Amino acid sequence: MRKLRYSVATSLDGFIAGPRGEYDWIAPDPAFDFAAMFREFDTMLIGRRTYEVMQTRGQSAESMGMKAIVASTTLDAKANSGVTIIRENTVEAVAALKAKAGKDIWLGGGAMLFRALVDANLVDTVELAVMPIVLGSGVKVIPEGRRIPLRLEKTESFPNGMLWLKYSVITPDLAH
Amino acid sequence: MRKLRYSVATSLDGFIAGPRGEYDWIAPDPAFDFAAMFREFDTMLIGRRTYEVMQTRGQSAESMGMKAIVASTTLDAKANSGVTIIRENTVEAVAALKAKAGKDIWLGGGAMLFRALVDANLVDTVELAVMPIVLGSGVKVIPEGRRIPLRLEKTESFPNGMLWLKYSVITPDLAH
Repeated sequence: MRKLRYSVATSLDGFIAGPRGEYDWIAPDPAFDFAAMFREFDTMLIGRRTYEVMQTRGQSAESMGMKAIVASTTLDAKANSGVTIIRENTVEAVAALKAKAGKDIWLGGGAMLFRALVDANLVDTVELAVMPIVLGSGVKVIPEGRRIPLRLEKTESFPNGMLWLKYSVITPDLAH
Repeated sequence: MRKLRYSVATSLDGFIAGPRGEYDWIAPDPAFDFAAMFREFDTMLIGRRTYEVMQTRGQSAESMGMKAIVASTTLDAKANSGVTIIRENTVEAVAALKAKAGKDIWLGGGAMLFRALVDANLVDTVELAVMPIVLGSGVKVIPEGRRIPLRLEKTESFPNGMLWLKYSVITPDLAH
């Protein structure tokens, strides 16, 4: 089955955005091979706020070679005809999406979405680009909830101090 | 001047302890050379709660070759005659301590103590042993406050998934 991978930038103190949504402190290292990363995915799954931030930045899943799926109860379907919208039963919809053939699915933002999906044992990896800053306050990259054991898979340091961490989520073995 | 180094274990989601002080999830890797680390310090600076946790675990700064200094307004001096207690003016007391000759000072716990000292530009490094777990809730390793720019100095991965990160705090250059 293809993987659902939560891959986002974070401050060292675990914020995905500042208290007013600031992301000025996120400076991906030019040495990071985004193109190679994008090729591992064919679908981007995001929350509405992440989607709107991407729009204000002129970013789109299409330009990264992916199909966009936005989890939102409020997003206007007519004004956003280029994206698929999950309105309800998000967990079931994502489980069905994972069961389809395809490349991996990038959970690119929406920390609450991550928490709901990891609690449903649907998230396979947590991949963090840790920026060398204590942000002080903001939106938590990992919202509070239950414990989740992880396996460290990979780390990579970049010249600007960005640190790339990849963890696998250790999910309960339902077969036992 | 000798350095003040905040060096503690944390979960990936930035908790130094669980909501009831739990530390069962902290499993330092046997491959980590604690003895070598301890030799870099001659003083351990901690908050009262950290001190009390160490006592319940049978740990002491002395056994690590360090002198213990506890920041506390309430700790009983008679019952704890082996440690130096900072009762007030913590920032000034730590600044004076740093100005004395000696090895580095280990800020080994007390997240609020860390925040007060880093805000006073007295903390030189943040060194985190990141355990491969999302704890879900607890005591924040880096309490909320102002932004603090960092410089990534070193990372090291251990067999059990523990990740060692060392950052320097970029302090304002007071000479300019």
